Amino acid sequence: MDKNLEHIRHSLAHLLAAAVLELWPDTKPTLGPAIDNGFYYDFDFNADGRGTDAEQRGISDKDLPRIEKKMREILKTWKSFEKQEVNEKEAKKTYRDNPYKLELIDEILKKGGPITFYTSGEFTDLCRGGHTENMKDIDPESFKLDRIAGAYWRGDEKNAMLTRIYGLAFNTKDELEAYEKQVEDAKKRDHKKLGKELDLFFIDEEVGKGLPMWTPKGTKIKFELEKFTRDLELKYGYEHIATPYLGSEKLYATSGHLDHYKSNMYAPIDMEGEKFYLRPMACPHHIRMLLRKPISYKDLPVRYAEIADYNRYEKSGELMGMIRVRKFQLTDAHIFVSPEGLKEEFKLVCSLIQEGLSGLGLLSVVSYRFSKRDPKNSKKYYPDDELWNKAESMMKQALDEIGLHYKEVENEAAFYGPKLDVQALNVNGKEDTIFTAQIDFLLPEKFKIEYTDKDGSKKRPVMIHRSAIGALERTFAFLIEHYAGAFPLWLSPVQIRVLPISETQHGFAKEVFEELKNAGIRAELDDSKETLGKKIRAFKTEKIPYALVIGEKEVEAKKVTLESRDKGNLGQLSISDLLEKLGLEILEKK
Amino acid sequence: MDKNLEHIRHSLAHLLAAAVLELWPDTKPTLGPAIDNGFYYDFDFNADGRGTDAEQRGISDKDLPRIEKKMREILKTWKSFEKQEVNEKEAKKTYRDNPYKLELIDEILKKGGPITFYTSGEFTDLCRGGHTENMKDIDPESFKLDRIAGAYWRGDEKNAMLTRIYGLAFNTKDELEAYEKQVEDAKKRDHKKLGKELDLFFIDEEVGKGLPMWTPKGTKIKFELEKFTRDLELKYGYEHIATPYLGSEKLYATSGHLDHYKSNMYAPIDMEGEKFYLRPMACPHHIRMLLRKPISYKDLPVRYAEIADYNRYEKSGELMGMIRVRKFQLTDAHIFVSPEGLKEEFKLVCSLIQEGLSGLGLLSVVSYRFSKRDPKNSKKYYPDDELWNKAESMMKQALDEIGLHYKEVENEAAFYGPKLDVQALNVNGKEDTIFTAQIDFLLPEKFKIEYTDKDGSKKRPVMIHRSAIGALERTFAFLIEHYAGAFPLWLSPVQIRVLPISETQHGFAKEVFEELKNAGIRAELDDSKETLGKKIRAFKTEKIPYALVIGEKEVEAKKVTLESRDKGNLGQLSISDLLEKLGLEILEKK
Repeated sequence: MDKNLEHIRHSLAHLLAAAVLELWPDTKPTLGPAIDNGFYYDFDFNADGRGTDAEQRGISDKDLPRIEKKMREILKTWKSFEKQEVNEKEAKKTYRDNPYKLELIDEILKKGGPITFYTSGEFTDLCRGGHTENMKDIDPESFKLDRIAGAYWRGDEKNAMLTRIYGLAFNTKDELEAYEKQVEDAKKRDHKKLGKELDLFFIDEEVGKGLPMWTPKGTKIKFELEKFTRDLELKYGYEHIATPYLGSEKLYATSGHLDHYKSNMYAPIDMEGEKFYLRPMACPHHIRMLLRKPISYKDLPVRYAEIADYNRYEKSGELMGMIRVRKFQLTDAHIFVSPEGLKEEFKLVCSLIQEGLSGLGLLSVVSYRFSKRDPKNSKKYYPDDELWNKAESMMKQALDEIGLHYKEVENEAAFYGPKLDVQALNVNGKEDTIFTAQIDFLLPEKFKIEYTDKDGSKKRPVMIHRSAIGALERTFAFLIEHYAGAFPLWLSPVQIRVLPISETQHGFAKEVFEELKNAGIRAELDDSKETLGKKIRAFKTEKIPYALVIGEKEVEAKKVTLESRDKGNLGQLSISDLLEKLGLEILEKK
Repeated sequence: MDKNLEHIRHSLAHLLAAAVLELWPDTKPTLGPAIDNGFYYDFDFNADGRGTDAEQRGISDKDLPRIEKKMREILKTWKSFEKQEVNEKEAKKTYRDNPYKLELIDEILKKGGPITFYTSGEFTDLCRGGHTENMKDIDPESFKLDRIAGAYWRGDEKNAMLTRIYGLAFNTKDELEAYEKQVEDAKKRDHKKLGKELDLFFIDEEVGKGLPMWTPKGTKIKFELEKFTRDLELKYGYEHIATPYLGSEKLYATSGHLDHYKSNMYAPIDMEGEKFYLRPMACPHHIRMLLRKPISYKDLPVRYAEIADYNRYEKSGELMGMIRVRKFQLTDAHIFVSPEGLKEEFKLVCSLIQEGLSGLGLLSVVSYRFSKRDPKNSKKYYPDDELWNKAESMMKQALDEIGLHYKEVENEAAFYGPKLDVQALNVNGKEDTIFTAQIDFLLPEKFKIEYTDKDGSKKRPVMIHRSAIGALERTFAFLIEHYAGAFPLWLSPVQIRVLPISETQHGFAKEVFEELKNAGIRAELDDSKETLGKKIRAFKTEKIPYALVIGEKEVEAKKVTLESRDKGNLGQLSISDLLEKLGLEILEKK
């Protein structure tokens, strides 16, 4: 946030408090900072003892316009903020009826800082400063109150519940409107909303929180994503394996998960005195698979891929749709490679990831982050300077040689090695890490993996952990939002719907429908008695890429009229031309 | 077992005891019955206190020929069995040093039965009878001692460990040899042995008992089985869904699993005070999926299919390879159908199952069992005579109408309805139930499933639970044994191996190999320096269906010589003819 905008937002928080106090003079103001998209202020409306929160005093979102109006009135009267340093006695006298401010004053004194009041117009607030110098800089149309919410004092649920009023604020009215449009758009694209509307997935509390189920339509997309991943992996020389979502205690003791990752794991299940865990990661399984037979340098690199079941402990409050779940499937792989082969293999990994993102149509919204350790933080990172330097410089070389644009960040590496994060811009304009590729020297040591080199000596391989397209659940959610549910043809659960105009065309429509199905196209036939207009609206609402309109003319010409979800009427064509067009579009994943 | 053969086997158990007592006179004989393939006798070799079991006295399999020889010597002297009824005093005196026989005598007395001794030659044994009338009937070449094993007295691990000697016995020498050949053959086909030799799966105690992992080769077969199942299901109008392997306590309380099936379930996992179970079945999930929206008669039948993760509690001693495991994937489905549509739908289910078995090449080894309730057993079966009668007669009609040959058995139904068991003859000549189709009136009640019928009234659908090709793990094990690892082309992990005779053909061999890969054939290139003879032996040992031999002549003619695993040299052909031949064979699943 630029400093100037931050000052404007902070100033508006004061203005909000001033307005609220004019409207409800017995309110106790507490704290009001600038935030990402504006500002907020927390109030205790309970000042007169008439209720425990704003709601009981009847204050709600419907009061926001009134408060906003008052803010604009007061704004006209404000020029700038006047700073005044006060002593403890004076400060505590001013706030003798406000326990929140008294607590803040005590804190300031403890830290030895000066107590400062800032005044603008007739309103004075305990504040450490940081306001705009000239209130005239604030365009009265560039801010807006957003919503009312509950918030615990100091964010601690043991404290009193206060009433928080949020405001949006930007430099200009245009910026505010652009932001509101983005939020509106993001809401429409929300994968939880679209997932329900388009019947793509289903989260049922009776089955379990954080355990989403894929509906018939969603499962079609899931299968396409699986096939896409596996085809890509075959092309890059991976072997697929299948390993269970359970593992013994010994396995996770050896891997170190029980030491470093236990808080993300579920409680163990007892089987005849042995403990088994729902696995948080598949690396130990893949390593044990590798160790089933001796390894020669000729076998390397070994590339094991699996769409692997993962289980992560998540608090119910942190679960979110398909994005934060308790069980998911990662398009996972573990590569075992000689130290000499590491750089070239890592380049191949980057290449596979780019090809994957390109196929999903996401290249334009992703960026890359090269996450290194903080060399000064010896606790957080596996302590071996030489290995780290080698790994990081090798990774950097690989990234530079393939010309990947990336941002270098310190102190974001994994415990055991540096990583490449795939960052995607979500519909809220924020960056999420959707998956990673990591270099690991540690697990090969812990599991004592060795291969026989050319000269007969035993050597230790390096591991690469990488995902191809991330967790199916999270990537699915991301794709829903990215495409607003209007998936490209290859991913669409229903690819085309055949629409006979009236019953006399049902015979030909059925023929066309069967031909499409036989060609492997996911087709539907709408032979209901609805009007064509309604049928067309329906296929567009359901975000089906294409419809075929079949009327008398079409039957006569043995052709179909193609209607596109995105491009409107595309004219008449023969079935064979249609199949060719669809086939090509599916192949090109456009 | 025919009565006569049973008597011969029992007589041979006496003969075994007589021989052992001649060789080790201080041995205490205990019990020796006829069994499925012969007989055994349990001895306490510890009579003289020199050791705790046979092993410590140095008695092992290497003594079997000596004992067998002694048996044949004694056999010549035996004519028949002479029965003698004795009183308690006499019996106890005879066995005063044998606590096992004393225990048996007390048991006989408790039951009020007479104590009988049977004598042949010089050997007398406490016995209830059932011997051959004429020992001359026994062909001395028709039996054989098999092996020595430990066995607890009365099968109770709290008792002393005895030494059991097993013998094989049949009517004739030919029958014995045929049996031995079958056992030998079954051993060679054992899926645990072949699974390791052909590197198809891997069970690792460190990952966990009963949790097999599919190797790269096994996973190729797994994917083929999955694709086969799903294609078949699409053809029959199923919709695929994907649901999690965990479910809440509430879900299994509603379904009744916690009442009726808890002993097969693992202990629950706590998540913030809620209990979750590794699911033993997927029915509740599929029902909840159905209930996500209102159901109309027009939607029925709803057919949900999933290759579903199942978890079953199995004692470690009962685990066996891929057949008895703790986690498996069932090719599962649940159909919701109106009572009127039930019969036709059940016929479709039978048809799908037969098509599945036919595709896997198993039609010749399966039979069908129609498992009904026992009407007198009101505890074991859901108590509603009308429903049972309707369901059973409907199922019988369906089976008869499609002309399925089946065996009708009582008291083998599921708790909630009759079922059709698919029985397969394993390599040991025994029948296993590999999967089932069941009719269920109960779960629709428990979950209160309703659909709106034509007239607007609410009705309850019926459920069919059915598998398409069983559990992937068990069916895989069955297929390995059935084909002795020599899978048909479509299932083979490696379908063809290209064998250049010398280095000068490597170029053309590489071209051919790439062409095969591009055509989607799972091909390998063996460009090692081994001789052609060795390369040919290798592809046959690895049970790869085909190899292509490429020498000078082939390069010149731009052709390849096809060598079949099963049919030897098939002559030269062009690449395009080869691709056509392989494509057809894969399509036909031969």
